[in-house]
Amino acid sequence: MNYQPNDTIVALATAHGSAAIAVIRLSGPHAFEVVEKYFCSKNQNKKKLSNKATHTAHFGLIVHQDVIIDEVLVTLYKGPASYTGQDSVEVSCHGSIFIQQQLLKLFLGAGARMAQPGEFTMRAFLNGKLDLSQAEAVADLIASNSAISHQVAMQQMRGGFSSKIKLLRENLIDFAALIELELDFSEEDVEFANRKDLKDLIAKIISVIQKLVNSFEVGNVIKNGIPVGIVGKPNAGKSTLLNILLEEDRAIVSDIPGTTRDTIEDEMTIDGVLFRFIDTAGIRTTTDVIEQIGVNKALEVIRKSAIVIYLFDSHEISSGDLKMEIELLKDHIGNSQLVLVANKIDSENDSDLKAEFSDYPEMIFISAKHNQNIDILKQKLVALFDTRTIDATDTIVTNARHAHSLSNAEKALVKVNEGLANNIAGDLLALDIRYALEELGSITGQVTNEDLLDSIFTRFCIGK
Amino acid sequence: MNYQPNDTIVALATAHGSAAIAVIRLSGPHAFEVVEKYFCSKNQNKKKLSNKATHTAHFGLIVHQDVIIDEVLVTLYKGPASYTGQDSVEVSCHGSIFIQQQLLKLFLGAGARMAQPGEFTMRAFLNGKLDLSQAEAVADLIASNSAISHQVAMQQMRGGFSSKIKLLRENLIDFAALIELELDFSEEDVEFANRKDLKDLIAKIISVIQKLVNSFEVGNVIKNGIPVGIVGKPNAGKSTLLNILLEEDRAIVSDIPGTTRDTIEDEMTIDGVLFRFIDTAGIRTTTDVIEQIGVNKALEVIRKSAIVIYLFDSHEISSGDLKMEIELLKDHIGNSQLVLVANKIDSENDSDLKAEFSDYPEMIFISAKHNQNIDILKQKLVALFDTRTIDATDTIVTNARHAHSLSNAEKALVKVNEGLANNIAGDLLALDIRYALEELGSITGQVTNEDLLDSIFTRFCIGK
Repeated sequence: MNYQPNDTIVALATAHGSAAIAVIRLSGPHAFEVVEKYFCSKNQNKKKLSNKATHTAHFGLIVHQDVIIDEVLVTLYKGPASYTGQDSVEVSCHGSIFIQQQLLKLFLGAGARMAQPGEFTMRAFLNGKLDLSQAEAVADLIASNSAISHQVAMQQMRGGFSSKIKLLRENLIDFAALIELELDFSEEDVEFANRKDLKDLIAKIISVIQKLVNSFEVGNVIKNGIPVGIVGKPNAGKSTLLNILLEEDRAIVSDIPGTTRDTIEDEMTIDGVLFRFIDTAGIRTTTDVIEQIGVNKALEVIRKSAIVIYLFDSHEISSGDLKMEIELLKDHIGNSQLVLVANKIDSENDSDLKAEFSDYPEMIFISAKHNQNIDILKQKLVALFDTRTIDATDTIVTNARHAHSLSNAEKALVKVNEGLANNIAGDLLALDIRYALEELGSITGQVTNEDLLDSIFTRFCIGK
Repeated sequence: MNYQPNDTIVALATAHGSAAIAVIRLSGPHAFEVVEKYFCSKNQNKKKLSNKATHTAHFGLIVHQDVIIDEVLVTLYKGPASYTGQDSVEVSCHGSIFIQQQLLKLFLGAGARMAQPGEFTMRAFLNGKLDLSQAEAVADLIASNSAISHQVAMQQMRGGFSSKIKLLRENLIDFAALIELELDFSEEDVEFANRKDLKDLIAKIISVIQKLVNSFEVGNVIKNGIPVGIVGKPNAGKSTLLNILLEEDRAIVSDIPGTTRDTIEDEMTIDGVLFRFIDTAGIRTTTDVIEQIGVNKALEVIRKSAIVIYLFDSHEISSGDLKMEIELLKDHIGNSQLVLVANKIDSENDSDLKAEFSDYPEMIFISAKHNQNIDILKQKLVALFDTRTIDATDTIVTNARHAHSLSNAEKALVKVNEGLANNIAGDLLALDIRYALEELGSITGQVTNEDLLDSIFTRFCIGK
């Protein structure tokens, strides 16, 4: 990839398509000149931009060979007071696709080149405006689709996670210093570092890293949605329930005009929490081979789900039957949360049902078809998520790369700990410590290489 | 519709979807206050906006109940130096759909309301920033998809068309004044206006209006593309030709990364000219009823086309056959341009073909399958368009409403002209003159009403 930071780069920064306005963004040493070449006043006299103050907006025309391409607003950001840290220009034009293309062509012709995906943010990183994990959070923030994923990405972008990692690294450097002292003078009878302090420090570092590594399980759920499996016998009403859950969501979304979203089938946000619903074949014990495949699929879904909704037709199942079903489920459900939902209730059987299933005070009685008590079910789902006590202000790892590096650092430090117990040679310990430091440093980009940057920033959208 | 101009309105101004950035636009007396309510500095202290200069950009946070919604850039435009003429704010946020929704919700909660389609531009009109035909051109500009439609819309938006209409109206008012003088004193033997001058003036006005009305035929083509019918016997290679024409176009479009467009099947732009290709069933004389339907369809296509490509398999048709086919076509083709294209050429039959069809120096020899000479065909299409001598700097009517009003004005003036010849009473003439004045005035919005505004602006996208 060509990441020459002295190239002037250009890209469409807003979403594709025709709209009221579109924004074309430029960054680099010649950003002002490139736009200036075509920027004119209302009466088509050339207008200077480089002598204007930073953070100011200027109305004018973009004119090429006496043809007016558009009336635009040009906003200037002078380095280092810009997103990338370089001179940057945002050209706000009419949102015609034709105009967007013409402007991009003009700027490309005037010496700018098309930005690589993520290249603006990469420049922000290279110029010290953001560290690497903050830069990664920008992409997460743009992709965020729930209150929690948004808050976690925001916290990471604003440096909450980075400062935690940096603190860990400092602690580790302190530890390394103590170790070296200890070992250098181990043959003499001087004790520079209290043995217990040393053990406490490494234990503390390992424990913090472990907590972060563990948080990735939750972090992944936040980013990708909480998997909810809906299981039950055929005709329990699973598809009807799924549809009503998803349809309602769509209606809510379209309540705000101008903000229609690309819904991914089977995903929905309730009270700012993203759920990912997984439909299943009817689950039951069977000897039929074909049905067995369906059941196996259901069991697979259960294993993948953090929450399992067991849905049944309240007219079909007795309390005794249900008990057996639950026993069956419990063999597979592991740590997932089970939600019992009685479907197809009506005014006539309501009180009978509550008596029949009085052993299950948590059971939710709904009619998917008539949209009854669906809200209660939703509140239950959100509440279950809350009981997992995810606090967005806690540091949660949502990035697989970070989790991997933390896990590597943890392994190295456990080795250090063992080595310490076995009085292993200092230079060997130092190797593992250095490895752990590198892994931590790679998260924030204190230690980095070109391949890593490549793999991170190519996942961005163009224009960011 | 609720168009209260003192409401503060808000809308997403950029295209829907997730992207690097999105822009939310507010306009109205409380635009600054609404944003100020949530706008904070980096360390989350409230930041004032209303005391800042117009056309300045400010970095900060949008914070709601201690939750950071986003880091944003807020650009201020103080009325009347804004697009709408009112105080306006553009909030440039990270292009997450979730963030866009949250910000809209916040601003709606703080007293702004969702903008109606076109409401920003309508305010620009109501505040005298644009006249009505200029405002309409904004929508055309956003929808423009070729160099010509873009230039015509741009000229109209910049007031070229309006000033022509206004001049016409002034001429008509001059004429009305002369007529009144003439008629008031008709019983006396005083001649205030030279009879010939009077006739010349109305003839001139009518001729200008006629020219404008006629330009709508071309204007419509500019806006909606030049219809090109491809006709020929079955297996002449029509679909292959169509595909290669369209595919090539798509390839050109995707040359510019980040600017993929929503292609409407069968439309394409060559050298900035929009063509709309219409595929046909094979055309030939036939007695078969089913085939007749296909042929009728082909004839319909020919009637709708400005350019007709007659494609034939160069191995199958002799010069004599072709002559007959052309005769057949000419009965239906009317004023359309005919382009003869010999398909399936190869190196072996090349010189033979040129000899065979030497009577047709304009004939184009291609191989659609092997993409040979397709460029020549394209250049021919563009050249044919040029021979229609459409000059984007000419005033061309592209808007059906304008064409309709002009046509009404023309009819009324023809009646005036006749009345003048027949020495009809002055007050009757005055009625038609007033009608023509109103029709002209409705184009630029000098004469208007709420229904008209409603029907114009509801066709806009939200956010413009």
